[in-house]
Amino acid sequence: MQRSGEDFRTIWLKPDDRSVVQIIDQRLLPHEYRVHDLRSWQDGLVAIADMYVRGAPLIGATAAWSLYLAALHGADPASTVREAAAALLKSRPTAVNLRWAIERTLALVDQAAPGAVLADIIRADAEAICDEDIEISRGIGMHGVALLEAISRQKAGATVNVLTHCNAGSLATINWGTATAPIYFAMQRGIDVHVWVDETRPRNQGSQLTAWELAANKVPHTLIVDNAGGHLMQHGEVDIVITGTDRTTRCGDVANKIGTYLKALAAHDNGIPFYVALPSTTIDWDSRDGLMEIPIEQRDPTEVSDIYGICNGEPARVRTTSANTPISNFAFDVTPARLVTGLITERGVAEASEVGLLDLFPEKRQR
Amino acid sequence: MQRSGEDFRTIWLKPDDRSVVQIIDQRLLPHEYRVHDLRSWQDGLVAIADMYVRGAPLIGATAAWSLYLAALHGADPASTVREAAAALLKSRPTAVNLRWAIERTLALVDQAAPGAVLADIIRADAEAICDEDIEISRGIGMHGVALLEAISRQKAGATVNVLTHCNAGSLATINWGTATAPIYFAMQRGIDVHVWVDETRPRNQGSQLTAWELAANKVPHTLIVDNAGGHLMQHGEVDIVITGTDRTTRCGDVANKIGTYLKALAAHDNGIPFYVALPSTTIDWDSRDGLMEIPIEQRDPTEVSDIYGICNGEPARVRTTSANTPISNFAFDVTPARLVTGLITERGVAEASEVGLLDLFPEKRQR
Repeated sequence: MQRSGEDFRTIWLKPDDRSVVQIIDQRLLPHEYRVHDLRSWQDGLVAIADMYVRGAPLIGATAAWSLYLAALHGADPASTVREAAAALLKSRPTAVNLRWAIERTLALVDQAAPGAVLADIIRADAEAICDEDIEISRGIGMHGVALLEAISRQKAGATVNVLTHCNAGSLATINWGTATAPIYFAMQRGIDVHVWVDETRPRNQGSQLTAWELAANKVPHTLIVDNAGGHLMQHGEVDIVITGTDRTTRCGDVANKIGTYLKALAAHDNGIPFYVALPSTTIDWDSRDGLMEIPIEQRDPTEVSDIYGICNGEPARVRTTSANTPISNFAFDVTPARLVTGLITERGVAEASEVGLLDLFPEKRQR
Repeated sequence: MQRSGEDFRTIWLKPDDRSVVQIIDQRLLPHEYRVHDLRSWQDGLVAIADMYVRGAPLIGATAAWSLYLAALHGADPASTVREAAAALLKSRPTAVNLRWAIERTLALVDQAAPGAVLADIIRADAEAICDEDIEISRGIGMHGVALLEAISRQKAGATVNVLTHCNAGSLATINWGTATAPIYFAMQRGIDVHVWVDETRPRNQGSQLTAWELAANKVPHTLIVDNAGGHLMQHGEVDIVITGTDRTTRCGDVANKIGTYLKALAAHDNGIPFYVALPSTTIDWDSRDGLMEIPIEQRDPTEVSDIYGICNGEPARVRTTSANTPISNFAFDVTPARLVTGLITERGVAEASEVGLLDLFPEKRQR
């Protein structure tokens, strides 16, 4: 990810002070870019619970770095790490990567040789977790960019218009993102690319995060309301849709931010390829029928009624509805595999089907 | 329309003072209900231009009532009416009903017998314009409610869930609305009805107007983001979709608020009937292919970036995006006739096709 021409990640050890981990306070984006210092594991806990950071990979990495801070500052490092781990686990109970990162770190603590410096071990592993995540994004980018290159060739080098929904970007990972990785790779290869950014109601991750990071990376983009994508597709203004996913079933059904299904329908109706970019860790190999089996979280109605922005130069939150308007707020929907052209994973692009996925992940075949 | 149990229209002559026309200042909804007095044709001009009133039928009626005020107060009524008409015509240049109402009034002025009291003639006609509009809405309601009754019977009296997009309600007309008329009729007939109200970005007519008027009329309803309708349809939570339209072609293609097409796709994918309610005056008999022939207006980007609401009890406008985010703001999209189950008009429900429409409107057959 770029900012002011400088390359960076979403979480890093402060260059001149190894006792400080730094993150971007994403709650303030796009209105303010503020680097936030984590000086203790409690700081990390707050950053996760209060959503300074979001996105499963970044949440996991922040937990690992928090455990490093626990080991560094604890009088008894092992017991401080265990105490921190218990607290961190509860901070965002539904985030799969959070549990995964914490369990991985605790295993290291259990296996550490007597006298080993736990902080060094955990720091090295937190670095590894971040590096591995970047490698996954890089794999997705490498396989996905081939799709954009093919469209660019078909269009004789004219602009490739990508539509995306929500933020499956660098800000949700360590770097590159998932849905955005092919776009950043395309920029590096000189492909003329332009991104339609869905606002993504109710939390506006598109207008507040994706638009911000595309601007920071100098990717040409245009913000649209979620209602507009169908119209653009009808008029030839979209060449490909790429979204992320929160969970994908063994058969290729895709749960993602609410509204993704509507874009998949419009892409299908207009003969436009609809791809989903995902780390293979988000495939739920035990689930087949996404519509029947994936529970859809309902979230706080104030996410719909209240909006955060800038008023006279100051941050402000306004209520847009009547105080007593009944509101439903479903967070995700499921796009059936039949509407998904392909799944872009770190191992390659799979057909959205059990056969397609097992071709890439033969170790998941059931005996 | 009801408020506090009292029946009223969106524009009316003040009961105890015939020199004052009253409207609701819709700019303040849903946060404040304020009746606004029009005491001169210039007041009417401001009300139209600054969007105290919106919706084609209501704009037309407001223009007619403004010309009444011009005749009432003008030293030379005929010339004052002509002066006012010229100014009003420019206030919202694209509104078809505005021109229609003004031309109708000017014809009355031209035909008036010498010595006739123009103000009386124009007042009577403004009343007639409003009464005719109500009759159209009543016709739509009467034909549309049959669809809801049939669903209610099929469901053995269980709740009929209607999804609507934007505001094709009482507030856009004189009373009853178009898409809402069948719903209000259903309430009167004791049908158990519930409405999913699309927020309708970017101008939020759903959350700010439709939710308000449904609440005022005690219609059970739930606000959702525009992204949510597909998910609800996948899970059997929507029985019928009814929207309004800004223009319908001879062949049944429907231009309406941006995002309507996405809901039509989702309804089609889930076998849910998708109806469009319209006064026959909005049928463009000279146009066939909506996608090719209906120009789609692009509006001010600030409609997307800025949101009006209440902050600490006070009205406030916040900017939700970065100041320099590029934005496209298409106001309408076109839903192809193949996705429209039927068109609910004041004469009956037509198939969305040339054959269907000409069955109801045989006078439009080409020689």
